[in-house]
Amino acid sequence: MSKVKPSLPKGTRDFLPNEVMQRKYIFNTIRNVLEHYGFSEIETPAFERLETLKGKYGEEGDRLLFKILNNGDFLSKVSDEIYQEKNSNKLLKEISEKGLRYDLTVPLARYVVQHQGDLVFPFKRYHVAPVWRADRPQRGRYQEFYQFDADIISADSLINDVELTQILIDVYKALGINVTIKINNRKILEALSIYADAKDNLSSITIAIDKLDKVGMDGVILELKNNELSDEQITKITQVLSAKSITDLIPLFNEIEVGKKGIEELQFIFNKIKSDNLIFDATLARGLSYYTGTIWEVTANDVQMGSISGGGRYDNLTEMFGGQNMSGIGISFGVERIYDVMQELNLFSSKINKGVKVLVVARDEKLIDTCYDIVLKMREAKIACEFFTGNVKKQKQMPYAIAKNIEYIMEIGEDEITNNIYRIKNIESREEQKLSLTEIIENLK
Amino acid sequence: MSKVKPSLPKGTRDFLPNEVMQRKYIFNTIRNVLEHYGFSEIETPAFERLETLKGKYGEEGDRLLFKILNNGDFLSKVSDEIYQEKNSNKLLKEISEKGLRYDLTVPLARYVVQHQGDLVFPFKRYHVAPVWRADRPQRGRYQEFYQFDADIISADSLINDVELTQILIDVYKALGINVTIKINNRKILEALSIYADAKDNLSSITIAIDKLDKVGMDGVILELKNNELSDEQITKITQVLSAKSITDLIPLFNEIEVGKKGIEELQFIFNKIKSDNLIFDATLARGLSYYTGTIWEVTANDVQMGSISGGGRYDNLTEMFGGQNMSGIGISFGVERIYDVMQELNLFSSKINKGVKVLVVARDEKLIDTCYDIVLKMREAKIACEFFTGNVKKQKQMPYAIAKNIEYIMEIGEDEITNNIYRIKNIESREEQKLSLTEIIENLK
Repeated sequence: MSKVKPSLPKGTRDFLPNEVMQRKYIFNTIRNVLEHYGFSEIETPAFERLETLKGKYGEEGDRLLFKILNNGDFLSKVSDEIYQEKNSNKLLKEISEKGLRYDLTVPLARYVVQHQGDLVFPFKRYHVAPVWRADRPQRGRYQEFYQFDADIISADSLINDVELTQILIDVYKALGINVTIKINNRKILEALSIYADAKDNLSSITIAIDKLDKVGMDGVILELKNNELSDEQITKITQVLSAKSITDLIPLFNEIEVGKKGIEELQFIFNKIKSDNLIFDATLARGLSYYTGTIWEVTANDVQMGSISGGGRYDNLTEMFGGQNMSGIGISFGVERIYDVMQELNLFSSKINKGVKVLVVARDEKLIDTCYDIVLKMREAKIACEFFTGNVKKQKQMPYAIAKNIEYIMEIGEDEITNNIYRIKNIESREEQKLSLTEIIENLK
Repeated sequence: MSKVKPSLPKGTRDFLPNEVMQRKYIFNTIRNVLEHYGFSEIETPAFERLETLKGKYGEEGDRLLFKILNNGDFLSKVSDEIYQEKNSNKLLKEISEKGLRYDLTVPLARYVVQHQGDLVFPFKRYHVAPVWRADRPQRGRYQEFYQFDADIISADSLINDVELTQILIDVYKALGINVTIKINNRKILEALSIYADAKDNLSSITIAIDKLDKVGMDGVILELKNNELSDEQITKITQVLSAKSITDLIPLFNEIEVGKKGIEELQFIFNKIKSDNLIFDATLARGLSYYTGTIWEVTANDVQMGSISGGGRYDNLTEMFGGQNMSGIGISFGVERIYDVMQELNLFSSKINKGVKVLVVARDEKLIDTCYDIVLKMREAKIACEFFTGNVKKQKQMPYAIAKNIEYIMEIGEDEITNNIYRIKNIESREEQKLSLTEIIENLK
């Protein structure tokens, strides 16, 4: 074997034990809330057929797919004619049939159509898994990162919109992150375009409004002007956007059916949920074109960071795989950003990063047998403990216990065993007690 | 978007909700045991640099690596000279720099060397993750499958051998699988080769013995003969292999230092662990050449299946990445096979596949508001429940509850609400009770 200086592909990460523990804490907290509401976890393979993935994410997305080379003598089936062109795009089709998953949405659509007969509907699923994108790596942007999605497929009832809103509230409460959950409805945006007599411009209006956070209202107005909307139309649009509450919209939309429907849907949700964290935001647009009803966006209140969750209602997820039309609604947890928020706000308490309860150390090699018996007695009492097998002469036990967030250390010498009085030290408080083994076990249980 | 009939790449699988629940039960049971012993979970990326992976798994392994195509115009940097050869192997080096991970061992070695300064030793880590191999797919063999490894790096003390043996016992006890844990020591095999005056043949003898399960003792003897060992040598080998207990070996190895060391190490373990599931097996060889001490293999007693766990002590894991030599010891849980064993023995009780506690059904659309309030009251009492949003007119609620392993169903009509007497039905026993809402909540809490 040749010696290689170890390194990672660019844009990828290893996770150290403490990071894994913190990330798992986030994942499991969200899992617990979702399962409490009847969501089930699914899994799909890391790679999909390229024909499943291609054409679903736009040209840019196709470019960012990681493609897997066909196995074996992959050139053997390539015709000389094609080969001679030396064209990457053309050769690609001949030598690659699989790609790494780019998100969890297209796999969900494929999964639902493929396993339709084995699922019960409304199908409430969640999926937490890495996805891969050949983006240029930057600070905070990776080629491998986790997504965490929860969706309900065949979700006609508005109760589903209520449940997902409540789940957003419950998850962030459980994580201890103070958030604002902005909610709007795509029907409001559609009504807005009708109100402004600009129905055909719905898509470009949505795109313009979606930039509000970045360019401000003046920037939005400028973009609307560039889209050749009249001053009068723009006035009507800003009138809708400045609505502070749902009721402000009622007089504007009293002759627009889709607007009345949007108001009704939003009111349905607000009637069932009383939470200071939930606010109506007429300017919330969400760029993605496939949303058709409720839309959400969640931001953390105490830290500068983009949205940490988002989602909405959509109508034709399964259509791309020839499935019958099923309504769907879903939310995404931006777990990578949630991790950064929790780091910045110092929300990972020492209780999360915990190791075993006790580290038992034999101060002398000939005491190993006796000390290991003590370990066994503790474990019998269901006390998680480790027997230190590192270098005691070099005093490595204390750094070990601290790095692994172990709560107590028991260093045992001949005296302790002879007298059956052991010193047990709380590593954080440095408090030390002298007790019999029975007392120690009783106290720790 | 073009319509594509949905399907998966060959050799890969989707997992349905119940399968995920069962697989997670296995993973989490093993996790809990390991964390109780002070092991921490790590994560590494799905793909590694090809130079990290290549040359570590033999020629066959290199062939089975999934290679990822360089992104963008991958042919632009390929010289015409190389390109014109149209040779897959040569072109591969020019158009691919990354490969999907093939196991968790090489990533561990890279990880330990790369992060040495951030880890504390003995480093007890576990890792559960998919690996990918471009093997020909067959029944029970996939191109994507999970591995679950636990290792201790810098593990000179024999206490580590004891701990991992105990972990094997604890894990299978927790899973409810009756197993035999066979244990041997590579030093015994080395001593065997010295005893038979065939020290230079250690490797071929090990390989021959490793086939015992498949070819029987006659087959092993035949292979040893083919390796030009004399009858006398073979007699001595079979004499060692027929040892029923460690003490049988003492007279044979009384002048072979490495044999005495092997016996001592095995006795150290047996002195600390009393378990009917643990047996010494002089014929256990384990094919992999890098083991140097304790070796294990675990089989399920009540079902025909290959080994479901294995492992051993090794000496030079980190050497391949230029790391200082660190002793290591590790075990693997064959989680895919464990799943099959548990399926076959029906060990996934209905308690594992459980959904929420109650499914609340509004028999009429106009009762939705009132029924949803009941859901909220239950959740306030921490009772997990779902509000059924599917098709009540088509009576889809009962199939839904059964498929999702929900324990109780409450179908609510106008009468129930008026009288505050609700029918709650246990889905498995079909027993129905009529109670007030307060009583129901009290009973379920």
